[in-house]
Amino acid sequence: MTVSPIDSALYGALFADPDVAAAFSDAATLRAMLDVEAGLARVQGRLGIIPADAAARIADVAGAFEADLAGIAAGTETSGVPIIPLVEQLRAAVGGEAAGYVHWGATSQDIVDTGLVLRLRGVAGLLEGKIARLSGLLAGLADLHRGTVMAARTRSQQALPTSFGLKAAGWLSPLIDHAARLEELRPRLLAVQFGGAVGTLAALGDRGIETMEALGAELDLAVPAAPWHVQRDGLAEFAGWLSLVTASLGKMAQDLILLAQSEVAEVRPGAGGGSSTMPQKSNPVACEVMVTLARSNAALLSAMHQAMIQEHERGSPGWQLEWLTLPQMAVAAGAALNHAITVVETLEVNAARMRANLEASNGLILAEAASFALSAHMPRTEAQALVKDACLEVTKTGRPLMEILAVKTDAPVDWNAVADPANYLGAASALIDRILARRR
Amino acid sequence: MTVSPIDSALYGALFADPDVAAAFSDAATLRAMLDVEAGLARVQGRLGIIPADAAARIADVAGAFEADLAGIAAGTETSGVPIIPLVEQLRAAVGGEAAGYVHWGATSQDIVDTGLVLRLRGVAGLLEGKIARLSGLLAGLADLHRGTVMAARTRSQQALPTSFGLKAAGWLSPLIDHAARLEELRPRLLAVQFGGAVGTLAALGDRGIETMEALGAELDLAVPAAPWHVQRDGLAEFAGWLSLVTASLGKMAQDLILLAQSEVAEVRPGAGGGSSTMPQKSNPVACEVMVTLARSNAALLSAMHQAMIQEHERGSPGWQLEWLTLPQMAVAAGAALNHAITVVETLEVNAARMRANLEASNGLILAEAASFALSAHMPRTEAQALVKDACLEVTKTGRPLMEILAVKTDAPVDWNAVADPANYLGAASALIDRILARRR
Amino acid sequence: MTVSPIDSALYGALFADPDVAAAFSDAATLRAMLDVEAGLARVQGRLGIIPADAAARIADVAGAFEADLAGIAAGTETSGVPIIPLVEQLRAAVGGEAAGYVHWGATSQDIVDTGLVLRLRGVAGLLEGKIARLSGLLAGLADLHRGTVMAARTRSQQALPTSFGLKAAGWLSPLIDHAARLEELRPRLLAVQFGGAVGTLAALGDRGIETMEALGAELDLAVPAAPWHVQRDGLAEFAGWLSLVTASLGKMAQDLILLAQSEVAEVRPGAGGGSSTMPQKSNPVACEVMVTLARSNAALLSAMHQAMIQEHERGSPGWQLEWLTLPQMAVAAGAALNHAITVVETLEVNAARMRANLEASNGLILAEAASFALSAHMPRTEAQALVKDACLEVTKTGRPLMEILAVKTDAPVDWNAVADPANYLGAASALIDRILARRR
Amino acid sequence: MTVSPIDSALYGALFADPDVAAAFSDAATLRAMLDVEAGLARVQGRLGIIPADAAARIADVAGAFEADLAGIAAGTETSGVPIIPLVEQLRAAVGGEAAGYVHWGATSQDIVDTGLVLRLRGVAGLLEGKIARLSGLLAGLADLHRGTVMAARTRSQQALPTSFGLKAAGWLSPLIDHAARLEELRPRLLAVQFGGAVGTLAALGDRGIETMEALGAELDLAVPAAPWHVQRDGLAEFAGWLSLVTASLGKMAQDLILLAQSEVAEVRPGAGGGSSTMPQKSNPVACEVMVTLARSNAALLSAMHQAMIQEHERGSPGWQLEWLTLPQMAVAAGAALNHAITVVETLEVNAARMRANLEASNGLILAEAASFALSAHMPRTEAQALVKDACLEVTKTGRPLMEILAVKTDAPVDWNAVADPANYLGAASALIDRILARRR
Repeated sequence: MTVSPIDSALYGALFADPDVAAAFSDAATLRAMLDVEAGLARVQGRLGIIPADAAARIADVAGAFEADLAGIAAGTETSGVPIIPLVEQLRAAVGGEAAGYVHWGATSQDIVDTGLVLRLRGVAGLLEGKIARLSGLLAGLADLHRGTVMAARTRSQQALPTSFGLKAAGWLSPLIDHAARLEELRPRLLAVQFGGAVGTLAALGDRGIETMEALGAELDLAVPAAPWHVQRDGLAEFAGWLSLVTASLGKMAQDLILLAQSEVAEVRPGAGGGSSTMPQKSNPVACEVMVTLARSNAALLSAMHQAMIQEHERGSPGWQLEWLTLPQMAVAAGAALNHAITVVETLEVNAARMRANLEASNGLILAEAASFALSAHMPRTEAQALVKDACLEVTKTGRPLMEILAVKTDAPVDWNAVADPANYLGAASALIDRILARRR
Repeated sequence: MTVSPIDSALYGALFADPDVAAAFSDAATLRAMLDVEAGLARVQGRLGIIPADAAARIADVAGAFEADLAGIAAGTETSGVPIIPLVEQLRAAVGGEAAGYVHWGATSQDIVDTGLVLRLRGVAGLLEGKIARLSGLLAGLADLHRGTVMAARTRSQQALPTSFGLKAAGWLSPLIDHAARLEELRPRLLAVQFGGAVGTLAALGDRGIETMEALGAELDLAVPAAPWHVQRDGLAEFAGWLSLVTASLGKMAQDLILLAQSEVAEVRPGAGGGSSTMPQKSNPVACEVMVTLARSNAALLSAMHQAMIQEHERGSPGWQLEWLTLPQMAVAAGAALNHAITVVETLEVNAARMRANLEASNGLILAEAASFALSAHMPRTEAQALVKDACLEVTKTGRPLMEILAVKTDAPVDWNAVADPANYLGAASALIDRILARRR
Repeated sequence: MTVSPIDSALYGALFADPDVAAAFSDAATLRAMLDVEAGLARVQGRLGIIPADAAARIADVAGAFEADLAGIAAGTETSGVPIIPLVEQLRAAVGGEAAGYVHWGATSQDIVDTGLVLRLRGVAGLLEGKIARLSGLLAGLADLHRGTVMAARTRSQQALPTSFGLKAAGWLSPLIDHAARLEELRPRLLAVQFGGAVGTLAALGDRGIETMEALGAELDLAVPAAPWHVQRDGLAEFAGWLSLVTASLGKMAQDLILLAQSEVAEVRPGAGGGSSTMPQKSNPVACEVMVTLARSNAALLSAMHQAMIQEHERGSPGWQLEWLTLPQMAVAAGAALNHAITVVETLEVNAARMRANLEASNGLILAEAASFALSAHMPRTEAQALVKDACLEVTKTGRPLMEILAVKTDAPVDWNAVADPANYLGAASALIDRILARRR
Repeated sequence: MTVSPIDSALYGALFADPDVAAAFSDAATLRAMLDVEAGLARVQGRLGIIPADAAARIADVAGAFEADLAGIAAGTETSGVPIIPLVEQLRAAVGGEAAGYVHWGATSQDIVDTGLVLRLRGVAGLLEGKIARLSGLLAGLADLHRGTVMAARTRSQQALPTSFGLKAAGWLSPLIDHAARLEELRPRLLAVQFGGAVGTLAALGDRGIETMEALGAELDLAVPAAPWHVQRDGLAEFAGWLSLVTASLGKMAQDLILLAQSEVAEVRPGAGGGSSTMPQKSNPVACEVMVTLARSNAALLSAMHQAMIQEHERGSPGWQLEWLTLPQMAVAAGAALNHAITVVETLEVNAARMRANLEASNGLILAEAASFALSAHMPRTEAQALVKDACLEVTKTGRPLMEILAVKTDAPVDWNAVADPANYLGAASALIDRILARRR
């Protein structure tokens, strides 16, 4: 029985990425915590902090341990943290003298947080891979459509011509920055948490920092200056990154939905859900979900920042709020990237319709271009006034602007050239190249 | 495999209420949609809109239908809505001529939304019951402790005496309003949605409104003036109510956590999670979760309001955002109420410690009371000046305020009486009665 | 110098309603607090709690008092509450014996909260008036355009015909509920707060409740069972209402922006901002602002719910968070209503373009209607198959659906009638009437 | 008249930083836009895109121009952007031929966004300076109090000893990361926006990119690959940074509020607001405000991420949502940093009370230390059992743990040493050094 659409068999295909989701399953959660316990034992055995045979025994058992979920669930209800019953079960399985060395000098939060970080490492890698793949697809789209002329729209209105290639490059651009941001935040995020009961490492006497450093090395995680158990900026920063990613995809999806409207019909994003009774429909399903996930993450992000206000050396409400929030955000980012990849891979671009929509303004969309062309032959204000008059005539008569201008003035302007929106793309192609050049 | 802690075997016991959660399971979701289809068929059969035998056949099959979940999942991915593949499966199961009358004149959203409302009816009932039970417990607590004197604290500082009974009555008070609010919003929330493809009921010719009204009656739901498919204020209002409930419980829980601090130790809320290495600890697990759920719902609520901006006759991103958000909020409200009930049922109140904490100020907390007592025998400003001097002496010497005042003045004040915080509770007991009287 | 666009001379005209804003000015804030002090003195004089002449003096001075703002600002910085320095200034102005009776038995929060409630009463009235006015305008629009046929759009795609009148009635519908909600919440919101330092009314001995009741009557506010200083559900509920209102308007505005797109061009909402170089543009400025304000309020609402978790008998962070949040929300609601009123008053509806957009599908949008028409003359599945074939032909040939069908079958259908979208509006007109009937 | 507490004379001292606020005043907003216009003219003159004398005239006039605010306000209401009326006024002031070269090839958003970025550069510098100053103060505090023993508290309960120095170092630690984050995001944030009407730079023919680069250099801003007018991740990232900063300060403030509670009384943060009738009170005003601002920014951040979903080449609702949100967030960060600096500068630390609170557990807080000490002389499980028994006796008798243990066992443990919490600080001092070493 599941509540969240992410976990639902009905809705999961829309809202979840199975690979990212796997990192947050109960099994993966337990496995990561056991890996931390095993790593800790290995390290402490090597350093002579616990007996070598106890260390080996613990690492062996933890490496293969299958927890009794029902027992852990009951223990979580009592203690508020699943690691407490897990350690109990692990100790029982290890048995003998070695049992006493399980979890040596650690506190629950050390294991839970470091276990989370181990899983986030995988998640970050998955998302990075998806971003790279999507970036490649968008780069291809941008390059392919650098000459595909269409209307740029500002404030819902056709404004000037642009190219679909520049639009695609615009969607690509923030993804390049997101990849860079991930590189920057990674060492802050993927850092071992090890501080003992209150962050002083007291239970390890003078061997605490040594253990923390060795554990970081063992798990291939960064070693922070000090335990970060109540300084959660690394996780909140990562949540912010997840939301930046989904919001950038949400913007792209919103553009595509608008372009796919019946009256615009310039693209067909994704197979879409047809309707038996309404054959003209092609619902932009994947794009809708991308917008949904963007808006959801934007709201959830505020919970991750509220969660940073954690009391003293452990403030559980903030900690638990992360548990409720971060997994959803990561899975949403994965799902949104998946949808984006599919959408771009299967996108149908209707260049003819793009041009037709441009031409529907009878040249009004090129009024600025006409002014500039005329300015070569008369003062600019005079040129503007002339064009303005001509525009009024367009509105009244429905005749094309350049035809009217050709009559109104004998300035030696090549009106056919001005009438072609492809001649008023400015730096579009060069801008595409500049964006593409930023990909390594 | 589950992502959300709500659905997790590890964490579910902390964050989920199983009864409320059941309303959002895949099975319950499908069942409710099938109930709507069955109800629709029965109603249309009765009205002669579809043949009576087709209606009977559909109602029979839908009543017992077990959907093929994998098939529906696949169809949801394509169409964005689970009802489309469900109707296909149902039609196949019904077979024959009758198959064509399944879902007659309805649109996907009619079935999804009305199915949701059917389940929310149960959820509202469950939550109402829990609120009533908690209210009863808090009323008992308020009554029992009307004479249990403790320090009231404003801005983190001991301020004046109050009673624990008044504190409990304060937690009760908003619950009474929440029950009233639920009564008020119920008819707006529990209304049938039936509008056909775009809300005009066109597929039913001139029988649309009749069908809508009959369907409402059949399902025992309110009948709105018109379909509400893109006017989502009813759901957002309910989400607001859920968050009001959890926030009120969050306030109570925060108070209890503060009272349970080692240095305050006036209550022990819930069994708490002890610690083997730290025997002095008693973690307020349930209260922590209540605060967590309150803060989570407060963040999620913003998503439900963002979701209200739905485009034209169906704007899927907003609709889907509700799917991602509302179930979590309802389950959180259920879980928070459960925790609150347990906490109140098992709460240990340490009246002696409450009094000891009060007395730790050496009477400074009763300085106002002393001023008022003296004002009966001298001008108020003179009384205040005298008390102020005495307070300084308390701070310097650590001697009790009333002792010092008894020496400083021969005004005939019964200083022993003034020194008893129980004599400075003002209207606390009467206020408790006023709150208790509001419960029916 | 102002930071918030609400307070800015540059942006205020877009984002603020001057009447609602006036309720939150420093002057109005101080005036309301002074009115509470005056009311309290009058009531206590009448009840004999303070001397009658002191009461008269206080009421007189407070009624006309002009505070020294700079002094209050300095005091607020120290104490965290403006009322503390205000009472000092007021006492100095009252002078003599009476000075000691200023603020008798009250605490800062009593004055601040009750002062807020007095101002919210006016705000609620203003917003109610605007909702009524907008409702009237929308009712007129709905009635006027009940026969104005247009495309209904689901998931960004033309789906079936509807009428612009039904669309307008849909925007009206939640406003009627919002008016009802305001009636319901008003007694919870507009309640006097009077509890003394910690909510026990101790400083007034056995006259506390009497004073609270009399003060409520004096200020024409509801009298709650008990002080609500740390139970903030009334304010959070009102904030939720404000956001419901702006979200409903945001939905309407989003629809209008979509309808105003160059390629749709079915409405022209508001004068719009033209562009000298882009003469074809008509920016839907007011509608954009309405969407902005809806999204802003949806985010701010979460702060109001976070703010409900207030510690003990006064938890300042939560209280202050209300101060930062609620005024913006109320002013946004006022501004959004103003924009909505202007937009509806000046809306240009292009019925011809609506019909043209409908017809652009060559009848595909009426495929369902064609199926139903044919079903009268053959089995439904056969009818659907025939229409489906015809639809494919429409897509290939661009010829109108009904023309193709008229050739494909000799069923005696009046194809001209079926081709008229006005004949496939279902219950649209009746639904408009049902919504209009809900306005009193 | 002001609505926002930030702009209020009453509340501004609590919630605003005047220096950061100055960057968002109407005057600064206009000045920055005029600086961009002047810079653009200079650059275009230098490149020969506009006549040199026109450029000089525009730069001169813009450099000293005082706009007519009322006129701009009116124009903003119509056009939705203040720059449109500003350019009109500027053109009128420039006059003659040169007037036509004002704003050459630019669009409103170029000027508004680049003007914002110019101001954010100053804001970032101000905040960086404040962070550096606060970091220095916290470093001093951490160093000074490395031996000040106190109770660490987990989940509201005393857990083990720690030092106040480590606590202060913990508050410092994220600030060091925030400074690094600012360095990383700066080039993404402080980038010129220049794209012309739709981001193609078409109005400048083949001189567009050249102009963009020269303008960036002229204004000392980074030059992006392409205009970022609808890719708002840079601003949302900065908003996230602002919220990270305030949340870290909120955590520190929450700790201080808890430490300042009457029953804990280990610190006195800030002068605090006393109360005439409650002389024992010392309200932690500045800390309360810091928590408030943290929670407010956490909520506002979600609006900045919602705002990223901007339609096509200009989506005004998202753009405007930034205007409503970002200034508040920046001013809040400035104010929170100011409060933090004052609090740390004036903090009174009560080391005696810290030790007394530790000792109140009769040694239970050192049970873990006792176990470890005993483990040197017996098997660990045996040692733990012995300590557990002794703990029970402490609870029953109230006698100190080490006294009881000294009787229970003749293991040669120095119980006096174990009883001193200063001997159980683990790596606290070394961790402080590691954090301090991270400051450059």
